[in-house]
Amino acid sequence: MKKYDVKCPSGFPEFAPSQERVRQQWLAVIREVFEKNGFLPIETPLVEHEENLVAKGGNPKEIYVLKRLQDEGEEGHSGNAIRFDHTVPLALYVARHLNELAFPFRRYVIGPVMRGERAQKGRFRQFDQCDIDVVGMENLSLLNDALMPAIIIQIFEKLKIGDFVVRINNRKILTGFFEHMGITAEKIKEVLAIVDDLEKVGAEKVLSNLLSAKIEKNAAQKILEFTKISGANEKIFEQLRKVSAGGRFAEGVRELREVVDALKAMGISENRCRIDLSIARGLDYYTGTVYETTLLDDRISGSICSGGRFDDLAEIFTGKKLPGVGISIGLTRLLSQLFEAGILKPDRSSPTQVLVIAADEKYLPQALELGTQIRAMGRATENYLEGKKLDKQFSYADKLGIPVCVVLGESEMKNGTVQVKNMKLKKQEEVKVGMLEKALKTIFK
Amino acid sequence: MKKYDVKCPSGFPEFAPSQERVRQQWLAVIREVFEKNGFLPIETPLVEHEENLVAKGGNPKEIYVLKRLQDEGEEGHSGNAIRFDHTVPLALYVARHLNELAFPFRRYVIGPVMRGERAQKGRFRQFDQCDIDVVGMENLSLLNDALMPAIIIQIFEKLKIGDFVVRINNRKILTGFFEHMGITAEKIKEVLAIVDDLEKVGAEKVLSNLLSAKIEKNAAQKILEFTKISGANEKIFEQLRKVSAGGRFAEGVRELREVVDALKAMGISENRCRIDLSIARGLDYYTGTVYETTLLDDRISGSICSGGRFDDLAEIFTGKKLPGVGISIGLTRLLSQLFEAGILKPDRSSPTQVLVIAADEKYLPQALELGTQIRAMGRATENYLEGKKLDKQFSYADKLGIPVCVVLGESEMKNGTVQVKNMKLKKQEEVKVGMLEKALKTIFK
Repeated sequence: MKKYDVKCPSGFPEFAPSQERVRQQWLAVIREVFEKNGFLPIETPLVEHEENLVAKGGNPKEIYVLKRLQDEGEEGHSGNAIRFDHTVPLALYVARHLNELAFPFRRYVIGPVMRGERAQKGRFRQFDQCDIDVVGMENLSLLNDALMPAIIIQIFEKLKIGDFVVRINNRKILTGFFEHMGITAEKIKEVLAIVDDLEKVGAEKVLSNLLSAKIEKNAAQKILEFTKISGANEKIFEQLRKVSAGGRFAEGVRELREVVDALKAMGISENRCRIDLSIARGLDYYTGTVYETTLLDDRISGSICSGGRFDDLAEIFTGKKLPGVGISIGLTRLLSQLFEAGILKPDRSSPTQVLVIAADEKYLPQALELGTQIRAMGRATENYLEGKKLDKQFSYADKLGIPVCVVLGESEMKNGTVQVKNMKLKKQEEVKVGMLEKALKTIFK
Repeated sequence: MKKYDVKCPSGFPEFAPSQERVRQQWLAVIREVFEKNGFLPIETPLVEHEENLVAKGGNPKEIYVLKRLQDEGEEGHSGNAIRFDHTVPLALYVARHLNELAFPFRRYVIGPVMRGERAQKGRFRQFDQCDIDVVGMENLSLLNDALMPAIIIQIFEKLKIGDFVVRINNRKILTGFFEHMGITAEKIKEVLAIVDDLEKVGAEKVLSNLLSAKIEKNAAQKILEFTKISGANEKIFEQLRKVSAGGRFAEGVRELREVVDALKAMGISENRCRIDLSIARGLDYYTGTVYETTLLDDRISGSICSGGRFDDLAEIFTGKKLPGVGISIGLTRLLSQLFEAGILKPDRSSPTQVLVIAADEKYLPQALELGTQIRAMGRATENYLEGKKLDKQFSYADKLGIPVCVVLGESEMKNGTVQVKNMKLKKQEEVKVGMLEKALKTIFK
């Protein structure tokens, strides 16, 4: 017999039913909060024209294109590729519907994207992203930048994922400061990467790395000093006021001030959203505010939710200036880390509350009828239909974690009763069918 | 400036926000009913090893394989391909987890699949399927075959899609009868296709087609007579009792009898599920019960939900006999037909119930605070943050169909009031902030 490799392709995730139930509950919460904040759902295809993805900065080494299996080696691929994020599809959506949309356009999208990265632990090739973005026509108020963390905080508090903080910064502060230090545009990225390591490697190592990168000693020391600015939001502003580093820097500080003030107006605590001047994020893309979100639990690494402001969403597709701001939850990675660390413990794998069991195969039709009745009482109800012995049926319920079995046997048929077995307490009682709804209410209260 | 083609790739669907809101409501209902019936959610990747998909009958002309854009022409594709249905991924899932699963394994899955078919109106290359299947170890009770229509009926009644009927048949009845008529196994498919046209082309044409297909005149006439059997379920059984067509035929009738009896036990009306001997469906795959579901509205063509019993789900992957029965809603096609025909009329595109408006930009911080308060009252609430004139803000609300605007202006700030504008009735009233919750309750009651 031919041997097939049935494993999931490397980097493509699979969730067990118990985990998938958690994922579905999370998706419902995320969706609900997005809608509670007035964001519109859109559903774009998994696939877009390949050249559009590349035009908006997709990495050709990571973009998956589609090809029909049988066309292999003949006419080449279809010209279509799988989306690698939700932002480029948003740009295309806005371009397609520019004249129908009400601006600012606020949309959310939840769904899978794919990147052909090297697969490694905690890194997936297919993963769900939950994105919100606000796109303006020509202009977009900075208050929208405050909205993003406010919404994310609503979600993570509702999901009870433990202590977390959204770190906020403004890219103009960093680039303005570095420019003012005489660092060339090409070097800025490298400097940021070095500075980003401060917590990990310490100040001395950062300094020597900066010098190795041919940053002047004086500039290197000032940069190091700058990145050490930390503390409460007002403390940071106080220190930033002492820094004079040119117009772009000052603009960044002004913008950050406006966003932080709006967060305060919305009643957001600093424990939940605070300034962190070391946050940089995809500098090629973002032009102002940037966010990263971290769980204050050592077992969960990396940012669980990130985003920022971009000046240009879709100019190459529309010829219009469309500034936007957005944020994205990396759901697959977050959930798989939480499951792995045991922080999130999935419940039972079956949604079934009541398993209806026939003590004898001949009562199966009545058991089906009873199942329909119990379902009408609002209980998730399943019939065991295989005509196996009672102990087999109970162990099926046990394996799936089904909390209650309702058993129909000969004496019950005669008396108009059923046996109600509480599987957790291993307690069984005979109940009149007319009293079953009440009995179940008592168990599930 | 380079011109980009921003259209969706042909055959890949996009839903507008108002339609997507309907789709989300439908998905929630489908999911709820599946769970109410004790089906477990599983989430398998969009991608499987290509050879596994082909091994289970995937059409190489329609299977999309993945290739990294930059690998083009070099090392060939990744060996991975996008799923074309949910059944093969189920087979692989069961093979992966054979020893952990409780049988019968009842799972549902909702999500996109892709087929590289010629794109045409109403036919998509990416579409959502909502599947339930029950998989047994070695055996599986026929009562499960009755469960499938019962669940589908719960869903479509809850979705209020109008009158519909699940047509049920048993493949053994057809193949048994044809075999008994001396028709060879290879011919059976052809004969079924001819007979399937009866309603469309009439009896005379079917007869001549059968003769052209080299079916003996006597057999052809008997086949025609057989397919004319119709009427209420019991009427059909009455007529089937008069037909003597060998063991396989008789087995099919017995099985259909058992399924129809179970449907009756569950209180399913014949208006909702009835026998139709002309239903055949993918004969290569199904081995017993088959289903098709049609809307009794001429504007909606084809089956909106189909499935059947299969003897062998995953023998090539597991070496075990795993019989199953399943049914699948073709959601994308159904929704797009309902939208197009105007049968399903989407509501407004925005989920927002209340738009908070500042009459002057300087009140935006207070407006944000007010927005947070209204959201806490349970209303989907959005702030207009762009500092535009009042009429611009109202027309934004109008364009999105937002039912209520709450306006904060100078006199309101002074008096501790807001203006509440009912956008539908074009009625505006001044309300004390403390009375706002009550005022909104009145509007949304």
